[in-house]
Amino acid sequence: MKVLNSPTIRRMPTYLHKLQRMRLEGKSHVSSTELADYMNIEPIVVRKDIALTGISGQRRVGYEVNELIRYIKQYLGWEQVISATLIGAGALGTALLGYDDFTSYGLNIESVFDRDPMKVGHEIRGREVYDISTLESRLQLAPPQIAIICVGNSAAQQVADRLINVGVKYIWNFANVSLKTPPGVIVQREVIAGGFALLSVKLKMSRSGEAGIERVQEE
Amino acid sequence: MKVLNSPTIRRMPTYLHKLQRMRLEGKSHVSSTELADYMNIEPIVVRKDIALTGISGQRRVGYEVNELIRYIKQYLGWEQVISATLIGAGALGTALLGYDDFTSYGLNIESVFDRDPMKVGHEIRGREVYDISTLESRLQLAPPQIAIICVGNSAAQQVADRLINVGVKYIWNFANVSLKTPPGVIVQREVIAGGFALLSVKLKMSRSGEAGIERVQEE
Repeated sequence: MKVLNSPTIRRMPTYLHKLQRMRLEGKSHVSSTELADYMNIEPIVVRKDIALTGISGQRRVGYEVNELIRYIKQYLGWEQVISATLIGAGALGTALLGYDDFTSYGLNIESVFDRDPMKVGHEIRGREVYDISTLESRLQLAPPQIAIICVGNSAAQQVADRLINVGVKYIWNFANVSLKTPPGVIVQREVIAGGFALLSVKLKMSRSGEAGIERVQEE
Repeated sequence: MKVLNSPTIRRMPTYLHKLQRMRLEGKSHVSSTELADYMNIEPIVVRKDIALTGISGQRRVGYEVNELIRYIKQYLGWEQVISATLIGAGALGTALLGYDDFTSYGLNIESVFDRDPMKVGHEIRGREVYDISTLESRLQLAPPQIAIICVGNSAAQQVADRLINVGVKYIWNFANVSLKTPPGVIVQREVIAGGFALLSVKLKMSRSGEAGIERVQEE
């Protein structure tokens, strides 16, 4: 069984966000200290994270911005476009459609489905919302690589079953349920309360007066 | 400097979600295997996670559901109510206001602010939206423990400054910016693309035919 270093992988989009902004600002090089300041973590953690991508840093001048962007994208598999469908055009789905960075990360949300007649046929953030009843007919010839599930908890399993039926193998699940899926289907469950749990532990630590609370490293 | 085990802490709300459902179903005990199945991780990881809360498991009958709920809540500091304000009642803010589990986690969003005149004075998910210009007058006497920032990237730093000015010390930041804050203020930055990065790495691993992809453990 492969073990992924999930904190490192979770940090990668943030590095990328910063690096792409630096590129726009015309900066050619970046040091691990600069990235550490931005991320509010220790430089040693940054160097370890970046080493995982396989790039070799130059001690004096730091990393070349363009090269580091390329290595991170390669590490994440983001140098190719990843096709996706989004199910559920409610508040959360709408928020995801407005997430600017996805395009530069290679995520292409090709289709959006909902069951609400008030939404079907209308555009949300520039995309037409399709009737969920047309999911099979629209997706089965060329299923997207990823499905993003943003429907209510009670509908999530049924939606997942239908997606898997048309050949979707990767599910990014924002519903607060544990999906039952056959072998070979990978589910990434997004638990929004996870970040709240982290913040709560930090809050609790400072309430109880534990030392070093001003810099809490997550590993 | 304190090092937090963030994957474990991120999993805690999911355990809690499952345990609270089990309690509703009248179940008194749970085994680590049962929790592992639900989480789609290995039982040994579950046992390590749970050991961190300080509970002592009983090998034969598993953990007592009520007791485990209590220990997890205590570990996260969720046995007390945590007061919060939410800034930005757009799609993401609306989605967070609809997150059912927050109440049972002790998160009490006492106030919601926005600058949009179309929203101010109206209710979103049962809460009145206040004008952002009243932030200081409404919060400064009794600042909430946590501020949840859901405004656009360009407004986030200014909003954070104002919150810190009235005495907020903990910020859950959903804007895609690195906030500059004085010492003593803790920011939890929520990067929605982090989960997408994890899913992408799993997708890439299976594309390249790496073994063991059907169970990828995150640590």
